[in-house]
Amino acid sequence: MSEIEQLAINTIGLLSVDQVAAANSGHPGAPLGLSTVAHAIWKQMRINPKNPDWINRDRFVLSNGHSVALLYSLLHLFGYPLALNDLKQFRQLGSKTPGHPEAETPGIDVTTGPLGQGISNAVGLAIAQKNFAARFNKPGYTLSDSYTYVVLGDGCLQEGVSSEASSLAGHLQLNNLIAFYDDNHITIDGNTNVSFTEDVNKRYEAYGWNVLHVQNGNTDLAAIQAALEQAKKSDKPTLIRLTTIIGYGSLQQGTHSVHGAPLKADDIKQLKTKFGFNPEESFVVPQEVYDYYQKETLTPGAAAEEEWNALFASYAKEYPTEAAEISRRLSGEFPEGWESQLPTYTPADKPLATRKLSEITLDNIFDNLPELIGGSADLTGSNLTRSKDAVDFQPENTGLGTYNGRYIRYGVREHGMGAIMNGISAFGAHYKPYGGTFLNFVSYAAGAVRLSALSGHPVIWVATHDSIGLGEDGPTHQPIETLAHFRATPNLKVWRPADGNEVSAAYKVALESNHTPSIIALSRQNLPQLEGSSIEKASKGAYVLKDAENPDVILLATGSEVEIAVNSTELLKANGINARVVSFPDFHTFDQQSKEYQLSVLPDGVPILSVEVLSPFGWSKYSHEQFGLSRFGASGKAPEVYKLFEFTPEGVAKRAEKTVAFYKGQQVRSPLNRAF
Amino acid sequence: MSEIEQLAINTIGLLSVDQVAAANSGHPGAPLGLSTVAHAIWKQMRINPKNPDWINRDRFVLSNGHSVALLYSLLHLFGYPLALNDLKQFRQLGSKTPGHPEAETPGIDVTTGPLGQGISNAVGLAIAQKNFAARFNKPGYTLSDSYTYVVLGDGCLQEGVSSEASSLAGHLQLNNLIAFYDDNHITIDGNTNVSFTEDVNKRYEAYGWNVLHVQNGNTDLAAIQAALEQAKKSDKPTLIRLTTIIGYGSLQQGTHSVHGAPLKADDIKQLKTKFGFNPEESFVVPQEVYDYYQKETLTPGAAAEEEWNALFASYAKEYPTEAAEISRRLSGEFPEGWESQLPTYTPADKPLATRKLSEITLDNIFDNLPELIGGSADLTGSNLTRSKDAVDFQPENTGLGTYNGRYIRYGVREHGMGAIMNGISAFGAHYKPYGGTFLNFVSYAAGAVRLSALSGHPVIWVATHDSIGLGEDGPTHQPIETLAHFRATPNLKVWRPADGNEVSAAYKVALESNHTPSIIALSRQNLPQLEGSSIEKASKGAYVLKDAENPDVILLATGSEVEIAVNSTELLKANGINARVVSFPDFHTFDQQSKEYQLSVLPDGVPILSVEVLSPFGWSKYSHEQFGLSRFGASGKAPEVYKLFEFTPEGVAKRAEKTVAFYKGQQVRSPLNRAF
Repeated sequence: MSEIEQLAINTIGLLSVDQVAAANSGHPGAPLGLSTVAHAIWKQMRINPKNPDWINRDRFVLSNGHSVALLYSLLHLFGYPLALNDLKQFRQLGSKTPGHPEAETPGIDVTTGPLGQGISNAVGLAIAQKNFAARFNKPGYTLSDSYTYVVLGDGCLQEGVSSEASSLAGHLQLNNLIAFYDDNHITIDGNTNVSFTEDVNKRYEAYGWNVLHVQNGNTDLAAIQAALEQAKKSDKPTLIRLTTIIGYGSLQQGTHSVHGAPLKADDIKQLKTKFGFNPEESFVVPQEVYDYYQKETLTPGAAAEEEWNALFASYAKEYPTEAAEISRRLSGEFPEGWESQLPTYTPADKPLATRKLSEITLDNIFDNLPELIGGSADLTGSNLTRSKDAVDFQPENTGLGTYNGRYIRYGVREHGMGAIMNGISAFGAHYKPYGGTFLNFVSYAAGAVRLSALSGHPVIWVATHDSIGLGEDGPTHQPIETLAHFRATPNLKVWRPADGNEVSAAYKVALESNHTPSIIALSRQNLPQLEGSSIEKASKGAYVLKDAENPDVILLATGSEVEIAVNSTELLKANGINARVVSFPDFHTFDQQSKEYQLSVLPDGVPILSVEVLSPFGWSKYSHEQFGLSRFGASGKAPEVYKLFEFTPEGVAKRAEKTVAFYKGQQVRSPLNRAF
Repeated sequence: MSEIEQLAINTIGLLSVDQVAAANSGHPGAPLGLSTVAHAIWKQMRINPKNPDWINRDRFVLSNGHSVALLYSLLHLFGYPLALNDLKQFRQLGSKTPGHPEAETPGIDVTTGPLGQGISNAVGLAIAQKNFAARFNKPGYTLSDSYTYVVLGDGCLQEGVSSEASSLAGHLQLNNLIAFYDDNHITIDGNTNVSFTEDVNKRYEAYGWNVLHVQNGNTDLAAIQAALEQAKKSDKPTLIRLTTIIGYGSLQQGTHSVHGAPLKADDIKQLKTKFGFNPEESFVVPQEVYDYYQKETLTPGAAAEEEWNALFASYAKEYPTEAAEISRRLSGEFPEGWESQLPTYTPADKPLATRKLSEITLDNIFDNLPELIGGSADLTGSNLTRSKDAVDFQPENTGLGTYNGRYIRYGVREHGMGAIMNGISAFGAHYKPYGGTFLNFVSYAAGAVRLSALSGHPVIWVATHDSIGLGEDGPTHQPIETLAHFRATPNLKVWRPADGNEVSAAYKVALESNHTPSIIALSRQNLPQLEGSSIEKASKGAYVLKDAENPDVILLATGSEVEIAVNSTELLKANGINARVVSFPDFHTFDQQSKEYQLSVLPDGVPILSVEVLSPFGWSKYSHEQFGLSRFGASGKAPEVYKLFEFTPEGVAKRAEKTVAFYKGQQVRSPLNRAF
């Protein structure tokens, strides 16, 4: 390779080592082992750091996120707003260089660190690119042709989530996805031969990927570049197995001692000497390296964006409708008045399962919101997630759909679906992915859901079969702890609508939340359209559905239990108890309302009983007493299972009476009024 | 095949169809498609329904648990206590035949239904058998040589958890594991070609499995039997791909309409006629089928157990120590006085991270408790899960350990680890599996953890790096919602010990809990040995660590926050506030104490403030006010991150003062006193 390229590669490696040394914390091994491939990938990437959000840029995902020092070195060298001083603050509180890649940082496409997520996000990025291109590219107007590059390690390949996403990527023939597998034989427990002896290449071939191998990933730049070129000609996603030596150049190279601890001072000195740098200096970037990347990458990248802008201007003349849609979507706005297509209901409308009401909502809005891209983890007929007019997202040669389709057959792969949805969202262009499964199996995807919340990807889970109300499938399928789990997660909405208006409200708020994901929990069984519900009221997260004069008790309920609570008020009235019923579809949204509004719903002076047929855990944030289910469910007909656990108007009335009696004559303070 | 075998196969299929029809709910397709292979497997299984727990029986796992009607048919025909009347009650509330297999039912080895779990449990069953055999078999005394048979479907193969477990099974060369893959091309979304076009055989070969194919799984009994024999000769686990027609015999065979809905009445009639049965009768078992299985399977099975008993009697003479251990373990008891080896501490002992204290505990007890079988998801050096004297569980030909080893290198496969631990526990012989990962990544295994709790597998998660206290790795690794999630799960202990005595208590209670799993959350950072802690006190789940006369406030804290709460009492005292400190290592255990004890810890009349540096969600069950973290964490040095969020003695004191002021002059009731 040329001298300047060797110098650039050494600079990447040393900058990374210096960061870890300055922090006295982090992972120097992978950055040293990967600096050659990082150089090779980034040098040819189409990026413009002046506009990190340019829609036709190439994406880069560092799936082994613990190698983040490498990424910060690259961001600095490639002109992103990350100064050497920022690198010196690596892993310090408040710095721009936290311990794992966070997508808020300009130039970082997805937050990574939890292993297996990045490569799975990348599948989502590649899906979105294919969809965007299929929708908007026209003869002579290739508006979208970007690649998604990934670097991943052994850990990513061991995680099941990557297996799920990779299998689907192969099926979908995503040839815009190019992944480098850092085959360095080292994980935290030592040599990979202690637990990971499978034939990765063969496995990826089995998934339908194009698999290549570079024998010497540390020095054979030409081979890496040749593999990249070959990958771009493939009609499949490509995995390039790159055999490397972890910590390349260190005295400890090839051992797991360089994986997760800073190199020793002496070792760094010899490394710098070996690499032709002054051993006494740190954070050094030769000017010619900046110049080189400017010439090779940044100038062409800026020119490419300018060309794209010119192309788009012509496109707008020839295809004004499509261009307007692109502009709208890049601006992050929905079509004006879109929400008028959300269905509304009155009590005269017939009872329906909220999963069915969700289907009606999706049917109503799907055509008019081309950013919606849905799917299900092989439960389409149960989740009711497929709009009547949807076309499947499939390679055309399958005869099953096209890349312009917006319904993804995820297979029984909940975790992969969650991570892929994050990637679709991260692509930009206002993509709003939703995915269906049973509420209980959203838990399989907990790792991805958490990252949706942490990174602010507003994906939507259509989580049907939301309680013991699913009946015969029994306790293995009946969620108990699930809502508590997700309600305790920061920045996550967890809707459990009670009727059609509330379903519409859930979708409205979920879709309009640009940085907050949502889980919409939906019933299998029919529920009536409630007197007193509306989209507007439900959009506040909780509201007084049915009031009573001078209430003796307030009943809080969600979903299928709202009807039961309402019915219990007649029984209570017969016993001289006035009950207000509050429908409480989403904690997170209610928490965002004004204190004044909140206290108008849950005022001082009235004891509050919450009613929900799942774990009562966490409800005491809003209620004095809780009626819930602190055990696993049971297999049987849904009404019988409800009766067994006394989730009936009688069962609710009984507990409401006890609540009234218990608080009689006491000063009762709203749970919303707290000491601090 | 012989007439009687055809009759038996038809009986299995029709009994299953009749169950689904009677319930008007369930899955008839897979049972019809699988009745031939089910017959082939069960006919040759070594089982004795008179003793479903016999340690050297073969195990059977129906990984596609929705086909449970098939399993009930088998249990009935093979003499388990499941009458035709029970089959007629399929999926009814309170019946012995719930909608998915539950391990309480005699003859069902593991609870299945959530896809991917069963095959992964089976890997655990196979590991336990290999370990048991390696420990106890002696020349001339083959006490353990059982097989684990699995039937799984496309869904199981798509789930990442099965990929994780299968890759490890290949590495571990578990040739006692024989799995039949029902390759029926149908899932709920229709044909598998919509999402699942990978080459499964090739993938399993890549994992290091022996892969066979039976072309006609519905009728070619001889080929199935030949494949079974071939599998038994393999030195690897075997996957037998069995191409079948789902709903074989139905008018709708081969379509997804037979997957999850009862067959139509007419269809059942033609099926019965086709199979030589009276179309007007249901739940019919020809006597010759009972007789056939009695002769072929049950009589030999009973004889095999008798032989085993005789063998064990001789063994006991020649190897009395080993025999005594086997007897003890089959009785489900620990060695007497085992708990005396749990370390205890005084405040004079030096501060240590609770993960380190966990390591000391494991070191102390590991040798004397041969039922302990540990591991880590590739974080051994961070979780500190490997006892000094441990030998790795590895095939001998790897040179890395032996099957008699009790430390499993799980790789970066948390979900697989969780499901495998369930399988090890389900094997019996008092196996107590534990596995390490970061607390945050236990969430990756949520699907398996839930099944531990539902099935009562007392596995232990050694969950280190339990808060923002892990520091630099930042928010992708810092748990927030995790404890709330697991505390809301029924039948699950979630320990967060504060010092060495509490770590010992956590292990003591966890190990002595025969039907409840535990997560032990452990700090990365050092914590002092507390004045006032003891194993006995902490074993109650919560206790008064530091009391004050007439306390003005009670501080509840766990783990690393206990020290902070204790230190805040000095500041409070200076302001004239007396504070009691309650250490609260486990909600579940505290909930099991007497009301009297509970109220002695958290009495009426004193406001209670909980302090925990994770989501406060759920703490209001025990406290009036909560100091927690309702957002994601931050990357930085641990003490700085704590300070940022005010988790300092000053920060606690400030909130305690506000709590005291807020409740001043009010009637304060213990949160434990409830209306019902």
